[in-house]
Amino acid sequence: MNLAPRIQEIHPFRVMELLARARALQAQGHDIIHLEVGEPDFPTPAPVLEAAQRFFVEHGGHVPYTPTAGLPALREAIADYYARRFGVTVSPERILVTTGASAALTLILAAATHPGDGWLIPDPGYPCNRHLVRTFEGQTHSIPVDAADNFQPTVAHVEQLWRANTRGLMLATPSNPTGTVLTLAQIAALAEAVRARGGLLIVDEIYQGLNYDGEACTALSVAPDAFIINSFSKYFGMTGWRLGWLVAPEGWAPHLEKLAQHLYICAPTPAQYAALAALSEDTRPLLEARREQLLRRRNVFAKALFSSGLILDAPPQGAFYLYADAAPFTDDTQQLAADLLEQAHVACTPGIDFGEHRTQTRLRFAYATDEARLQEAAERIARVLQSR
Amino acid sequence: MNLAPRIQEIHPFRVMELLARARALQAQGHDIIHLEVGEPDFPTPAPVLEAAQRFFVEHGGHVPYTPTAGLPALREAIADYYARRFGVTVSPERILVTTGASAALTLILAAATHPGDGWLIPDPGYPCNRHLVRTFEGQTHSIPVDAADNFQPTVAHVEQLWRANTRGLMLATPSNPTGTVLTLAQIAALAEAVRARGGLLIVDEIYQGLNYDGEACTALSVAPDAFIINSFSKYFGMTGWRLGWLVAPEGWAPHLEKLAQHLYICAPTPAQYAALAALSEDTRPLLEARREQLLRRRNVFAKALFSSGLILDAPPQGAFYLYADAAPFTDDTQQLAADLLEQAHVACTPGIDFGEHRTQTRLRFAYATDEARLQEAAERIARVLQSR
Repeated sequence: MNLAPRIQEIHPFRVMELLARARALQAQGHDIIHLEVGEPDFPTPAPVLEAAQRFFVEHGGHVPYTPTAGLPALREAIADYYARRFGVTVSPERILVTTGASAALTLILAAATHPGDGWLIPDPGYPCNRHLVRTFEGQTHSIPVDAADNFQPTVAHVEQLWRANTRGLMLATPSNPTGTVLTLAQIAALAEAVRARGGLLIVDEIYQGLNYDGEACTALSVAPDAFIINSFSKYFGMTGWRLGWLVAPEGWAPHLEKLAQHLYICAPTPAQYAALAALSEDTRPLLEARREQLLRRRNVFAKALFSSGLILDAPPQGAFYLYADAAPFTDDTQQLAADLLEQAHVACTPGIDFGEHRTQTRLRFAYATDEARLQEAAERIARVLQSR
Repeated sequence: MNLAPRIQEIHPFRVMELLARARALQAQGHDIIHLEVGEPDFPTPAPVLEAAQRFFVEHGGHVPYTPTAGLPALREAIADYYARRFGVTVSPERILVTTGASAALTLILAAATHPGDGWLIPDPGYPCNRHLVRTFEGQTHSIPVDAADNFQPTVAHVEQLWRANTRGLMLATPSNPTGTVLTLAQIAALAEAVRARGGLLIVDEIYQGLNYDGEACTALSVAPDAFIINSFSKYFGMTGWRLGWLVAPEGWAPHLEKLAQHLYICAPTPAQYAALAALSEDTRPLLEARREQLLRRRNVFAKALFSSGLILDAPPQGAFYLYADAAPFTDDTQQLAADLLEQAHVACTPGIDFGEHRTQTRLRFAYATDEARLQEAAERIARVLQSR
């Protein structure tokens, strides 16, 4: 087959095998609690679904391509959202609507990464980041992050790890898999450190709005020269619709748009019309009610998991993940995750899916299911751990 | 900004400027006839739209991610379609559902192209092909195709142009921008020539079904080892839904799926449920009625355009494009296209958007609007040409 080297060096998610096994067990009639997938169990918000339906009716079933950069009305609505919610002015010209946040990241990395360039990326972190860097012939410069730093990079990391070929820094706040957040002051300091080195800053804000211990914020408030990645999947509850956006620094958008013409043509049209309603102030109370529900889930599950003996050593302030340390029980959480599935019928994700830095003792749990099930899951996990 | 070289070498579609000017003229109240965009004026087929609506209702508004390779039922339905319509057996395991044909092409080129590899690509051809090759650090080896060869590559081309670093051959049938098709015998011979050189064959069949002078076919009938790219956009009338698929040779699908996990997560979920109805036999008569309507448009427009003095030197047997030669009038069709827009209020695409081989005298017209408008467009064009 003679696969390209980029493919040989990209790993599949380990959790996929586990998911397949979970489905097999489920098919045999077992009651599996799914805490492995990054997708809440909420339906599409009703106003969003209604907006899609209205689009079909009002356009007589015509579902044409949109401009590559997105519906002008949606780009403006996103700009309005930044102004209204965060008090930040962004020109709609700098906003590109994309096929999920994945496409936003792809466009930015393709446009900015010269072959051989390095990107500073936190480890653990969202695995696609390093795989996309590799796809465009770049290199990952890992930043080992620990609980002591809230699993987020610091200026000291940038100073120590920046190399001659480093192109920039990638941040995620709230982070996957840890749920930790950066303050605006921290982002400002990191942005300055990157700027001083002539580098680029990419900030993944796809969990923006799912904040539990403080207000949501945007890096644009302190780093107007950063690339911002965002999504309608998480806070806005639109995973399967595949819609996200990016905000590009001044001057970059036309280049990203040119590439998007060839890579995507445009983002899905029904999703774009639906998303107009997602950004409306009328939808906000519903989204906030969901956020509060996730907050209650977090509190219930964190407490229950603590009783099981797993260690939660950094406050999970956002997203819907707990990144627990199972060091008292094992240094092979890939095996532990398999055991938890077989013996407790609870599916979770082994740490190694998120990087190489002390990930072998870690498990990620997505608290994206209801409180009773979370309680039940923690009890089942405790029974397995106590029997070891 | 220090853009990556790959971006600097990718050209935007020239027609985009023309389209912007067309919209400006339209906003001033001028009656513009659009023959530049590759998108018929049909709405989504009613059964397809109904299937999407049914999905929303039956799933209580839940629109989750699907498996990365696509809904199992849709992969099976595509396999059934190959069996029923073309008498070809394809395992659903070899089929990946993708976010438009663009994503299918991206996955294949990313997985198969080592940096520096060359791909034989017909010139003129779909411009994204060479830009995607460049995106993954490959090179385009252009095959200059002319009317004498029906604007399609021949075995002689492969023999003459194959180099040490050539990775494979890309074909498109029916072709964009020429609408010409390859016979199964021609495809078989080309496949054998590529196979003999240890290369890969990619066949773009996104206009499959929009055939006017013979039955639709698939390269899989004669080249089961080819990569096939297809789409729900054209024959199935689902452009803005962004859905396509690929068929991978034995052994490749798991590697493509791994990359798709990181690049896309999955194709849009509503589109996948809608597409189940697109493939149904019940929908076929409606799609065939549309095909017949396009055939009538082709015949009307080809005749009318012939009267204007433009030359049609290869039979446009499929898709919905006429690739006309304006050599009697100009060797600068970028200027002529601009003049036709200003003076005739007809928008079409200059040949240079499709390559460099004798494209400066060419214009592409999409006959994707109704017969009366096509007749009117041809008359307006004739008046401008006759006044030169």
